Amino acid sequence: MAIKAPFQLLLLLGIISLASSVRDSSRSDQENPFLFKYNRFQTLFENENGHIRLLQRFDKRSKIFENLQNYRLLEYNSKPHTLFLPQHNDADFILAVLSGKAILTVLSPNNRNSFNLERGDTIKLPAGTIAYLANRDDNKDLRVLDLAIPVNRPGQFQSFLLSGSENQQSFLSGFSKNILEASFNANYEEIERVLIEEQEKEPQHRRDLRDRRSHQSQEASLIVKVSREQIEELSKNAKSSSKKSVSSESEPFNLRNRDPIYSNKFGNFFEITPEKNPQLQDLDILVNAVEINEGSLLLPHYNSRSTVIVAAIEGKGEFELVGQRNENQQEQREEDEEEEEAGQERSRQVQRYRARLSPGDVFVIPAGHPVAVSASSNLYLVGIGINAENNQRNFLAGEEDNVISQIQRPVKELAFPGSAQQVDKLLKNQNQSYFANAQPRQREEESPRKRDPISSILEAF
Amino acid sequence: MAIKAPFQLLLLLGIISLASSVRDSSRSDQENPFLFKYNRFQTLFENENGHIRLLQRFDKRSKIFENLQNYRLLEYNSKPHTLFLPQHNDADFILAVLSGKAILTVLSPNNRNSFNLERGDTIKLPAGTIAYLANRDDNKDLRVLDLAIPVNRPGQFQSFLLSGSENQQSFLSGFSKNILEASFNANYEEIERVLIEEQEKEPQHRRDLRDRRSHQSQEASLIVKVSREQIEELSKNAKSSSKKSVSSESEPFNLRNRDPIYSNKFGNFFEITPEKNPQLQDLDILVNAVEINEGSLLLPHYNSRSTVIVAAIEGKGEFELVGQRNENQQEQREEDEEEEEAGQERSRQVQRYRARLSPGDVFVIPAGHPVAVSASSNLYLVGIGINAENNQRNFLAGEEDNVISQIQRPVKELAFPGSAQQVDKLLKNQNQSYFANAQPRQREEESPRKRDPISSILEAF
Amino acid sequence: MAIKAPFQLLLLLGIISLASSVRDSSRSDQENPFLFKYNRFQTLFENENGHIRLLQRFDKRSKIFENLQNYRLLEYNSKPHTLFLPQHNDADFILAVLSGKAILTVLSPNNRNSFNLERGDTIKLPAGTIAYLANRDDNKDLRVLDLAIPVNRPGQFQSFLLSGSENQQSFLSGFSKNILEASFNANYEEIERVLIEEQEKEPQHRRDLRDRRSHQSQEASLIVKVSREQIEELSKNAKSSSKKSVSSESEPFNLRNRDPIYSNKFGNFFEITPEKNPQLQDLDILVNAVEINEGSLLLPHYNSRSTVIVAAIEGKGEFELVGQRNENQQEQREEDEEEEEAGQERSRQVQRYRARLSPGDVFVIPAGHPVAVSASSNLYLVGIGINAENNQRNFLAGEEDNVISQIQRPVKELAFPGSAQQVDKLLKNQNQSYFANAQPRQREEESPRKRDPISSILEAF
Repeated sequence: MAIKAPFQLLLLLGIISLASSVRDSSRSDQENPFLFKYNRFQTLFENENGHIRLLQRFDKRSKIFENLQNYRLLEYNSKPHTLFLPQHNDADFILAVLSGKAILTVLSPNNRNSFNLERGDTIKLPAGTIAYLANRDDNKDLRVLDLAIPVNRPGQFQSFLLSGSENQQSFLSGFSKNILEASFNANYEEIERVLIEEQEKEPQHRRDLRDRRSHQSQEASLIVKVSREQIEELSKNAKSSSKKSVSSESEPFNLRNRDPIYSNKFGNFFEITPEKNPQLQDLDILVNAVEINEGSLLLPHYNSRSTVIVAAIEGKGEFELVGQRNENQQEQREEDEEEEEAGQERSRQVQRYRARLSPGDVFVIPAGHPVAVSASSNLYLVGIGINAENNQRNFLAGEEDNVISQIQRPVKELAFPGSAQQVDKLLKNQNQSYFANAQPRQREEESPRKRDPISSILEAF
Repeated sequence: MAIKAPFQLLLLLGIISLASSVRDSSRSDQENPFLFKYNRFQTLFENENGHIRLLQRFDKRSKIFENLQNYRLLEYNSKPHTLFLPQHNDADFILAVLSGKAILTVLSPNNRNSFNLERGDTIKLPAGTIAYLANRDDNKDLRVLDLAIPVNRPGQFQSFLLSGSENQQSFLSGFSKNILEASFNANYEEIERVLIEEQEKEPQHRRDLRDRRSHQSQEASLIVKVSREQIEELSKNAKSSSKKSVSSESEPFNLRNRDPIYSNKFGNFFEITPEKNPQLQDLDILVNAVEINEGSLLLPHYNSRSTVIVAAIEGKGEFELVGQRNENQQEQREEDEEEEEAGQERSRQVQRYRARLSPGDVFVIPAGHPVAVSASSNLYLVGIGINAENNQRNFLAGEEDNVISQIQRPVKELAFPGSAQQVDKLLKNQNQSYFANAQPRQREEESPRKRDPISSILEAF
Repeated sequence: MAIKAPFQLLLLLGIISLASSVRDSSRSDQENPFLFKYNRFQTLFENENGHIRLLQRFDKRSKIFENLQNYRLLEYNSKPHTLFLPQHNDADFILAVLSGKAILTVLSPNNRNSFNLERGDTIKLPAGTIAYLANRDDNKDLRVLDLAIPVNRPGQFQSFLLSGSENQQSFLSGFSKNILEASFNANYEEIERVLIEEQEKEPQHRRDLRDRRSHQSQEASLIVKVSREQIEELSKNAKSSSKKSVSSESEPFNLRNRDPIYSNKFGNFFEITPEKNPQLQDLDILVNAVEINEGSLLLPHYNSRSTVIVAAIEGKGEFELVGQRNENQQEQREEDEEEEEAGQERSRQVQRYRARLSPGDVFVIPAGHPVAVSASSNLYLVGIGINAENNQRNFLAGEEDNVISQIQRPVKELAFPGSAQQVDKLLKNQNQSYFANAQPRQREEESPRKRDPISSILEAF
């Protein structure tokens, strides 16, 4: 294996050396705009029962994500037997359960629906819907990924809490005494005592009051403990996601209730597109879940029109994304230099964006950009794609859905250095599709268990 | 009634005191970004026959209205027996007649439709449509509210006038002599004399020419007088809005031709949503009209996804809107401080935005934001909502459509300081729905006529 | 003919004199934001086989084109027997063949479609589609107009090339050695040799290698020569655009397969609207082709809601567009002056934007803006309109579809200086519709051949 060629290539491309790009993940995060390490999430709320984290705005990170400006990624995490208290948001939400078991209750003016959710369950929560979410599991944390699509301001949304505490106020407290009295046809004192948490006032009285409450001893807060009995009461009439269909108008659907669209011994790829589900259709969103087994590779491919935000949930691996050099600086230059002639030369240079993946990391695959993902341990990814309608996944290697093999013979001759015959022979070498062995050369001789030394050499680059 | 609590609350919130926010409407206009007093309209045209006024751009007023950047609000006002001369605009228009009686004539390349319009009649005028509007009433001014949705440039539109005058030119005069001669197959002198008003040239000749005209002695202008005979001629074949249906593709529909969606002795709420009318569907707009009787209250509620622009047409009242502290400064800070950790604390603080309403005032209710409106005299509001499809109005008090009453018992316990029993008891206290008595405490003892002293004390805050 | 009036008018309007605006096209290009001379195209690629040119961003040229920010215009030009090598773009493309004969091959993961294209053929190439385009003609250059609608970043798109050369890289070279080896289950040396063009390395070896290739002696490049045999191979199974229908979901349609919507001895107007073709429906695009015969005029008209980008393909002529004074500076002022009262006065002033047209020029007609086009030699225009659904073309002169003739009698009296009778008489003078004689006065006496002296006087203005 000649090491010279790829190094030359990299120098030509002006990118950081392989060694530093792979080794130093914080540097690679800085220089790889497609990667959002876990520390790019901001904690919106945190207490002993769980937390809510919000990813940095995509479009503030890099100009290449201008079309993601109205999408925000959230992560909800809560301990067993806890509850996210009722709230509504001025954003549409797509919720996907990553792990654990939940009861989601969704309110409407004259109705209520409760759903038992588990890993892979996905549901749209329309903007303005008051909802609450319980972790009904006895042991496991609940983790939920959430794409928010604000309706009022691009990239910004607000939560409106029904209940207040020391640190946050019920939105009911925003109304004046007169309006509240007329609205509830009651004395303000009663309304305040029953619905509105008072603030930093008469602390002793408050503590006494709280102590008198039968089911709650902790501070009222955004995420609170719930008893087993309360969980049971919330579970009554809760529906589960259909095992047969993913086309419900308002009920959750599970990514795994359909057969994977790609599957072999190296991995599985589940996907629900807007064409298959009316909840996703409105928002033009796709949701997918990808399992890549240890030592396997999701073959190089690109999405024809969807940009997919991918969260690494479990396992470790690495992605490689092919873009153009200085992609994030392009717009600036265009403006500065008025699209001068040299512009085109620049834009023809490809650049590899590569990073290791750990649980909690997020990366973005823009439409048209080729990508491959390898797993060093069983890797589980959940992706949410915008601009999803009519998206097509074009593979660049493998036996099936390989768009390169569709090229006609004379064009193969003209496009590639090899002859059409050589190209065809090479393309047929990979008889797997979609997923393949990430280290085929080693595998043939040794068992996966024994490839560690080689893999560590590899990683030493 | 303890006055202490709400004052403390207000101090905590850091908002201006009740007294100043209510008393000083100009200050409250400055500090309440949701309110647009009448002086925020710019006069586009005015003569003795009427005027056209354009409201300030929503998005220039405050960043919280970024999603309103392509919507402009106009007010047309004309005296009896006058006509807005033919023009077209590079904007879609939703016209709603506020008062008076009109004939609207809408031209297409090979057709013409005239409509008799009266209060509550609403019609979409697609971009580029040449139309003219006559006040056919003998005594009453015509007032029309108009939402413009520009097609060329966000938030900006142009009017193209067919007829010119001293101050404005017919767009026909923009073509060269050669083009005009070829187009009309006539001498330029004739075209100029017959179609194009000359400008500040040969004033004596012009004056003579004008004097010779049989039906018009005033200056040609945007709004001109029309004789009773001309009105009669324009009325021929004019259709009225259907009394039975609101689902016409191109004809006007009246907000009151359907039963109110909410109605009791305290008020009425009429609404046409995009689902009910194809003209509104395209633009994703809802239109509503709300009557709140003197001393009554439209109960606290929020729109799940629509942002509604509301114009106060008649009567006086007050609105309270619940948002978050420094809502209009949020984006700026976010950018400056790169969404630093403290951000979330800030965003949890609710703030009351409150203002008196007089005829001509406009206020905006963003999606998700709770609002209540009270009437000190019979109040008539007309609202136009964007992002209207699938909008749901969630009430926070009252017997029906009260989303709080849908919360399950254990969650009531956890969310509110009171027990579930206390919460249920409180919620049942208000047996009205949608509209209620704004001063129930006083009403029980005295007649509405006699509550003036109390109401003036209230207003003294 | 009094020359005084129009000159006065122009002075009033503060625009450049007729003489300079018509004579000095480079100056008029600077001052006429609606005109894009050929030099406003940037060369993206050029070799001896052809070129690709990209028009300047509309929204960078002038703020009046803010709504065109996500549309880019491209021109492809290639010599006989050449091929644009396979690539995909992160943009939807509307291709329209201007002249010559092509074979377009469109790949999907498990399919391939080839189409014979000729003048007037139009096809949508969805974002991310790998395609290649051959000039199959023996003599004629192939010229293709292309509207690109980027999916990732407003107004910017990238091309992803499958094949590399000295100046540009195959996107395959962006993947690491490890990923490529695993993907193709082959040695990197073989992959590099067969699929990836090496760069500035071992030049002698490369030259030898290239010389060994049977069908290709030139440098691998974006546009390459193809042999007659290769063209024949590519032609196999290539379909032509339907002669009967323009409503295909994915196959090309020809603008001339339908009858012209307007036609007489002076010209023809062909148009396919989104209502007629599903490929255009998605993108809300219309495509038209206009033939104006020498000495003829496309009568003044405006598009009600579509903004049309027009390319002059053959012949010479002139367009006149009526806008408002300083249209491109308006926004700036509004921001600066906070929409001060004087604003309206300004916006009422009409301005003539006029320019000569030569092949390669582009001009933009915003929605609502009146326009007329005259031909000094047979003029062929191709237009692509955005915001096309429900667009209506309103003519301002001529017998049919003349919206002015729809105005009621009393309004004619009020709107125009002439009496209703005079107006009607004038309107009836032009008995042609849509197209007319551009110099009716001369035609009556002399034959078109003899009008040269007069026409040159005209052009001397």
